[in-house]
Amino acid sequence: MSVTVVGSVALDTVETPWGKNEEGLGGAAVYFSLAAANYTRVHLVGVVGEDFPQKHVDLLAARDIDLEGLERTPGKTFRWTGRYHDDVNMRDTLDTQLNVFERFHPVLPVSAQAPDFLFLGNIHPSLQLEVLDQAKASFVALDTMNLWIHTTLDDLKAVLKRVDAIIINDSEVKDLTGEANIIKGARKVHDLGPRIVVMKKGEHGCLLFEGDNVFAAPALPLDKVLDPTGAGDTFAGGFMGYMSQQDDTGFDTLRKAVIHGSVLASYTCESFGPDRLATVTQEDIDTRYAEFQRLTQF
Amino acid sequence: MSVTVVGSVALDTVETPWGKNEEGLGGAAVYFSLAAANYTRVHLVGVVGEDFPQKHVDLLAARDIDLEGLERTPGKTFRWTGRYHDDVNMRDTLDTQLNVFERFHPVLPVSAQAPDFLFLGNIHPSLQLEVLDQAKASFVALDTMNLWIHTTLDDLKAVLKRVDAIIINDSEVKDLTGEANIIKGARKVHDLGPRIVVMKKGEHGCLLFEGDNVFAAPALPLDKVLDPTGAGDTFAGGFMGYMSQQDDTGFDTLRKAVIHGSVLASYTCESFGPDRLATVTQEDIDTRYAEFQRLTQF
Repeated sequence: MSVTVVGSVALDTVETPWGKNEEGLGGAAVYFSLAAANYTRVHLVGVVGEDFPQKHVDLLAARDIDLEGLERTPGKTFRWTGRYHDDVNMRDTLDTQLNVFERFHPVLPVSAQAPDFLFLGNIHPSLQLEVLDQAKASFVALDTMNLWIHTTLDDLKAVLKRVDAIIINDSEVKDLTGEANIIKGARKVHDLGPRIVVMKKGEHGCLLFEGDNVFAAPALPLDKVLDPTGAGDTFAGGFMGYMSQQDDTGFDTLRKAVIHGSVLASYTCESFGPDRLATVTQEDIDTRYAEFQRLTQF
Repeated sequence: MSVTVVGSVALDTVETPWGKNEEGLGGAAVYFSLAAANYTRVHLVGVVGEDFPQKHVDLLAARDIDLEGLERTPGKTFRWTGRYHDDVNMRDTLDTQLNVFERFHPVLPVSAQAPDFLFLGNIHPSLQLEVLDQAKASFVALDTMNLWIHTTLDDLKAVLKRVDAIIINDSEVKDLTGEANIIKGARKVHDLGPRIVVMKKGEHGCLLFEGDNVFAAPALPLDKVLDPTGAGDTFAGGFMGYMSQQDDTGFDTLRKAVIHGSVLASYTCESFGPDRLATVTQEDIDTRYAEFQRLTQF
């Protein structure tokens, strides 16, 4: 089984109340891959510039992530700079430099064209369509953001018709559907295409919808969130990776996949960048999976 | 086993996007009592004016709630008027008329002085202290609000030293402790006295803390929230009522008590005022308790 992910690879500068991380490894495809690689073979498709440090490539390769689709082109790597508030649920983007990402058109190497699972990271919907035209996956999920909902809704709707699942923030569901009630919002998203809706709510956990089935998972309460950057993409990686490992997309597997995604996302929050995520072991996953059971059972 | 509740009895005028309810039965002690009465004997302590409709008294009596402590005095009943936004998590208070509540000093009849469980509804902390001086309960919980945190913090702290549990909104935890992180916030509340902290998060459910034990419960996703007024007090009533019925305050009972509170709160949201809550049957409780199991198990 394997998963292909297409998305950003970045150098992130992140400031939180507890410190600053300058030009660290970041990007949706990076967090997704490091999470999913705990469960399955991952093909990463993205682009970096000439300045992308070799150590970051080595870190990804060490987790056995296939980097054939990681293009290196002339120019500088995509950079993002953000600052979190004391309440780490809130952040400001201080700077975004697209650099080589601006002219990026994903090209899937043969190895990545027929995965069992395909994740379309949060990139322009027209690029997501280009990926869909190249890939034959049995299960496709996507992420998106308010920017695309507001500026390229037609393209986004064309993508939504062709995917099985969407992994989306609750505020984005409201923007996409105009519906404040989450149940009605999820139904309206179903009507746009995806039969599975995963609604992320940050520290409040997430909700999983498939038809009339609903599953609610809390986030693991953490006493120190050093840097939540990438937690959503980590979640998606654990979610898709687990489904790929189980080779199943039934609702009971989806429930467990949500917990696996939440487990890995909790590790991502505990360090700047993906440092902690990159060293997660099977034992770490088992320990925290059991914590989720204690946290939720009654 | 029995529970005594001290709190407001009100006539509420509530406007939501789905309609308006003029001068309906309301107040924290009412919602609490109607919820707790599903599990245990309830003594209601509060005050109403001469204008309080007899049909409301009859409704409470029909649920076998002891009304010996419901004082009727010259003057008008406490009135609250509020309007909910399209996003029913947000509301504006349009008018508050304390009326007879302004001079209220709770007097516990003998029958209500030695309950197993005592709930101090959201009233002035100095009144909560007056109640504590009159009652001998083996387990005391209280509710409070931002107003008391900001205006009478010393009194509130004196109450907190004498209670076992606090049932409080997440935003109030932040106000009370200055701590944005919920785990640290809960610990700081523990340090103020209560060994049990129940943190309500509205549509995101709630968190239960006792020492290092944590339990997370979602709210039941509802496709129509007609009027959430009283949901928090209903939750507290189900929570305390179930503990009283079980005659136990161990963590496993507390987990189930949180679900019972959430079950009843979900019914409260489905009608204006306490109409739906007042007709809840054991079968209704069982049905929705099972829904919570399906919603959370993995």
